[in-house]
Amino acid sequence: MSEVRTILLRKSVFEDNDRAADALRARMKERGVCLVNVMSSPGSGKTTLLVALIERLKQHYRIGVMEADIDSDKDAVTVAKKTGCRAVQLHTDGMCHLDAGMTEQGLQALGDGLDLIFLENVGNLVCPAEYDTGAALDLVILSVPEGEDKPLKYPLVFQKADLVIISKTDAAPYFPFDISRCIRGIRTRSDTADVIPVSAKTGNNMETLAGWFTQKLAEFRKAEN
Amino acid sequence: MSEVRTILLRKSVFEDNDRAADALRARMKERGVCLVNVMSSPGSGKTTLLVALIERLKQHYRIGVMEADIDSDKDAVTVAKKTGCRAVQLHTDGMCHLDAGMTEQGLQALGDGLDLIFLENVGNLVCPAEYDTGAALDLVILSVPEGEDKPLKYPLVFQKADLVIISKTDAAPYFPFDISRCIRGIRTRSDTADVIPVSAKTGNNMETLAGWFTQKLAEFRKAEN
Repeated sequence: MSEVRTILLRKSVFEDNDRAADALRARMKERGVCLVNVMSSPGSGKTTLLVALIERLKQHYRIGVMEADIDSDKDAVTVAKKTGCRAVQLHTDGMCHLDAGMTEQGLQALGDGLDLIFLENVGNLVCPAEYDTGAALDLVILSVPEGEDKPLKYPLVFQKADLVIISKTDAAPYFPFDISRCIRGIRTRSDTADVIPVSAKTGNNMETLAGWFTQKLAEFRKAEN
Repeated sequence: MSEVRTILLRKSVFEDNDRAADALRARMKERGVCLVNVMSSPGSGKTTLLVALIERLKQHYRIGVMEADIDSDKDAVTVAKKTGCRAVQLHTDGMCHLDAGMTEQGLQALGDGLDLIFLENVGNLVCPAEYDTGAALDLVILSVPEGEDKPLKYPLVFQKADLVIISKTDAAPYFPFDISRCIRGIRTRSDTADVIPVSAKTGNNMETLAGWFTQKLAEFRKAEN
């Protein structure tokens, strides 16, 4: 796919990532572009879920996607091919997370004229939570096969989340996953995170998820003015 | 469970982790204790697999388990309760991996008189691969629901592995997982890693896996003399 570029990110030069992230967030707000940071374990189905979500949002918003991985451009190619959206692959040169400076390099490669940008962070429940990317919204995807106990073991990523998506709910009959217990676990980390269980495969609850984004984008635009 | 202690690991004081790891490996060899470092994504079924494996090995070896997590002592309690083995929970104070110094703190807490020690590293396919723990054997567990493309995206952990266990094979009918393609992916990272697909749930191939350990332990003891 000629429209998919792969960018090798350089290490950030900023000493104070929190300040760089706040500055990036302010610039994005000024430009009216909502940046969404998507975090999860490897193999939680981030890319499949993004494709299904973008299908439901793309008639309303100009959407771009940044796929961060240590190697391979598989995910950016998949997203570009299946959704027709602008996508770039970011290679992190072995780094386990993105910070604000690296995110900014990706945004430059993606270019202007977008309303909504998804950053698919490196698959990792630990390190990405420690680095503010400058995103307006932070999402965590937890897939049913991973088990309901993840909020107990990986506190920070759930603490930071605006939304926890419980994915692959179609697999629930095959795994011992207690969704009430999972939500109680999320509540020990955050009183405010929204929780939406979905299946990208069957489409179950995907409209609810798309609705969540529509509402958040309306709030984002309102706050601009 | 009174027999499960939780240890808060301190940051290591060693500047040169590789040297500290080599020294630890040599001391363990001298003591005749085989240390196995188990790496995987969160939710790959490490603990369930270890319990099923230990059941098949414990009449032949004195086994101990170190469970590393950022928070919760759930896994150590599970292992101790289900297998009767000595287990300690290691809390990493937010750290995304264990190095040799942290591993050594865990070994001290676990105590003497063991033949085989499993270290369940923090659930993370990136950072643990970058830090030698001093283990004699490095394992990666990749579960079927995560997808066959993980060796393409997380090169180093597969490159380091002596054995890749493909877990949760009972879930194969419900996920688009092509095992031949997965093995080809592993081969792009390592010519020598063994690959064993198993299901801890149904017991499928667990005897083969136990046999792999029996052979490796025999080689380990032979190399001692």
